[in-house]
This record gives sequence, structure tokens and C-alpha cells, in this order.
Amino acid sequence: MLLAQAPDGVAEVTSGTDLAAVLTPVLAALAWPDGSTGIADGDIVVIASKVVAKAEGRLVVARDREAAIDAETVREVARRELPDGGVMRIVENRQGLVMAAAGVDTSNVPPGTVLLLPQDPDASARRIRRGLNARLGVRPAVLVTDTVGRPWRRGIADIAIGAAGLEVLQDLRGQHDTQGRVLQATVIGVADEIAAAADLVRGKTSGRPVAVVRGLAHLVTPDDGGGAAQAIRPPEEDLFRHGG
Amino acid sequence: MLLAQAPDGVAEVTSGTDLAAVLTPVLAALAWPDGSTGIADGDIVVIASKVVAKAEGRLVVARDREAAIDAETVREVARRELPDGGVMRIVENRQGLVMAAAGVDTSNVPPGTVLLLPQDPDASARRIRRGLNARLGVRPAVLVTDTVGRPWRRGIADIAIGAAGLEVLQDLRGQHDTQGRVLQATVIGVADEIAAAADLVRGKTSGRPVAVVRGLAHLVTPDDGGGAAQAIRPPEEDLFRHGG
Repeated sequence: MLLAQAPDGVAEVTSGTDLAAVLTPVLAALAWPDGSTGIADGDIVVIASKVVAKAEGRLVVARDREAAIDAETVREVARRELPDGGVMRIVENRQGLVMAAAGVDTSNVPPGTVLLLPQDPDASARRIRRGLNARLGVRPAVLVTDTVGRPWRRGIADIAIGAAGLEVLQDLRGQHDTQGRVLQATVIGVADEIAAAADLVRGKTSGRPVAVVRGLAHLVTPDDGGGAAQAIRPPEEDLFRHGG
Repeated sequence: MLLAQAPDGVAEVTSGTDLAAVLTPVLAALAWPDGSTGIADGDIVVIASKVVAKAEGRLVVARDREAAIDAETVREVARRELPDGGVMRIVENRQGLVMAAAGVDTSNVPPGTVLLLPQDPDASARRIRRGLNARLGVRPAVLVTDTVGRPWRRGIADIAIGAAGLEVLQDLRGQHDTQGRVLQATVIGVADEIAAAADLVRGKTSGRPVAVVRGLAHLVTPDDGGGAAQAIRPPEEDLFRHGG
């Protein structure tokens, strides 16, 4: 049984906030259907990148939206002229992620500022995991998530951009299905699937930036592991490079 | 609280199997943490396309794998030569879905056959929903899911290719966030996120082709609605068309 819930009551986060400290009482107060409370080893704490970025001081002054996006852009992947004269750009950003506007949040921030993504979301996840472990005495996995569009699908969806203590890609190659046949090409993007599940309970309008997913302890590892960077497709596997 | 589970005990499905009849005892036997059993209005029944396709007689004789893929292909989106001399093709198929091998399953099927996707997965979902409603007296939503690769992400993930009774795209445009700011460009691909959540409990090796997701009744509708076809990005929104 998979369980996921997004608690209310996460305090406002600003630059310098110790996220583990803010999350500790909220996570400790969680109630589960079996009567247990708090979080346990094997749980997965899923945090919207927005609050991680705010805590890390990534809300920066920027008079020019486009210049802020340019500064985070490594490579333009696609662009489209908009009816209002603007341009929508899908780019690869400094974190290696392919996103609209390089992941720069220019809409829901104070005028004259932009919110950049965490500089190293895997490091953020590791740090929060250490903080939660120190305060709560358990070792949940930690995911940092952001929202992306998909080329051939309408609607945005959440993916994992940072991870600590999670098997980000579940590699089933060589295992057998119920008919005894060897599975092929079966590496599952479980971190992104967990991010998607968490988004369903967290919502966009609710002020609940954190979800806890229980029931996937087989994917949670003692070590922090290679992080969500592993889920970024390397150039040699990318079928959609220009000229490729 | 979101809950998801994938029951054991779904009988083998072959051409002509009445899926609603096969699923009815399995779904009726589900046990939930609050002590309730079975399924209820507002639950979402998520079914792997593979069993839907088998039930609909889509396992067909095909001597030539590539010819079978060609027959399902409407448009080639990308291709790549493989080290073994073969070719991997990402194509748009007859259902409008962009997938490797047009969604034709050529690996885990008897020699000399291929398994095609359901011809109209939204119609499949509607039919199964009617059947479950007739047998169980409740109106869950029904999703039919398949597995896809993603251009810039490693690892495959499940998406919804058929839907009945679900708000496939949750449109939050015009709503306000907790700071009172209007949300922009916020249409969420919730059907795909539910497919991803279901995949986490169903697994690929387990012989459990069905999951039930509880806790998202706000997304379940009395009418069957427009189905998962709504999640297919129309050509005019596609930034990745050749020459686009």
C-alpha cells in the first residue's frame, strides 16, 4: 500500500531558513491510518524546489526577466514566438535540466526579483536529509521536485531534480516477468513517478510544499546515492539534439 | 491522504475476456486501512494497457516486427541507429501517442506475434467503467496506462492513454495561490501523474496489472468526459516538429 499526504502548517521560508528545522515539527505531527505518527525509515520526504530555493537565498534582484533566463541557460532546445510578442524558450539550464525559462521562476515572486533553482539540488536533498536525521533520528529519503512541461503531452507534471537516499532509477533489466521472460529496456524513472504522486496530494494552490510518501521503502537506501542527476539523459542518449 | 494498492489475483486475460468481470471479484476483495473493503465512488481504477489490449484481441500474428511498427506509425519523430544494426524509432502512432516502436509490444509476446495497443483506449476505459458500474454499483474513474520514455529524462514512466470519468487535465488558471497571486500556465497533467503513482505500486514484474488509487475524488466526474485524448498535445502546440 502506497500512502501519501501533504501536511499543512509549514512556516514561511525565507533566505537562511533551516528547512530541516522548519519541517521537523510538521513531519513529527503526521498521523497515519495505522495509528502511527511522524516519519519513519523508508519514508520519502518530497519538497517543492521553490521553498528549497528560497531557503538557499536564490531569490535575487533581476530587472530583466530575459537576462535572468539567459544567465541560467546552457543551450536552447526549442523556442516559440508568443501572440503577445514574447518568446517561450525551452532550454537546458546550469543544472542540466531541460525546462521552460531555464527553471527561473519569474511569476510568483516580488516585482524586480526572480527565483532561481537551487544551485545543486542533489546537495540540497542531502543536506535536508542530514538535518532531518539529526533532528528526528530517522533516515527518510529526500526528494526536491520541480514542475516541467512535456513535449508531446499537455499539462505540466512534477519531476525529481534533487534526491538523497533514493534509488532514482529502478533497474529491472535481467529480471523476469511473471511469464518467466527477461525484461528488456526496463529502467523505471521511479524518482519522477514519486514526484508526480507527491504533486497530486500537495497541490499548487494549497501552501503545502512538502509531501511524505510511505510504502516504497524498497527504493530507499542507507547511502545518499548518486542523486537525481542520474535521471538526466546524457547527450549521447538524446535523440532530439539538433542534427542528431 | 492518497492511497494506492495493486491487488494480486487478476486472472489471465485472453482475447474476448470480459475485463470488468475478471476485475470485479479482485476489486471487491480490496481492504483499506480504515477497515472498508472493495471500491467506492471517487476511486480510480488504473489498468495496464497490455491486459486491455489482450482482452480486445490485439495480439496479432506478425512475422515482421518492423512491418508491424510501420503499420501503426503515422509520423516518425526521431530515430537512432543501434549498435546491433537495428534502429530505434520514436514515432507518433494511430492513437496520436508519441512512443518508441509505436507502442507495439514485440518483446513479451509469443514468437510470431505482436501486441498492438487498444484501438481506442478512451473507449476501452469507458466500456470497463460501465462494466464495473453494472457489476459493483459504484462509479470509479478508469484509466488505461502505458509506458513511455521521455526525451531528456532517463527511465521510463507510465502515462494515461485512456480515461473515463476523470478530469484528465486539472486547469488551475485564474485561481490564486496562498499569496493571492493568480496562477499562470498551470494546467496539470493529473491523469499522467496518477498513472505514475499507480505504476509505483503495480510494478513490472509482479503480475499485478491493476491498481486502485483512492483520495482524489475531486478529480473524478460523473460523466465519462473527454478522455485521455485531451492530454495529447496538438500539432500547433508542438515545439518539436521538424522545421518548428
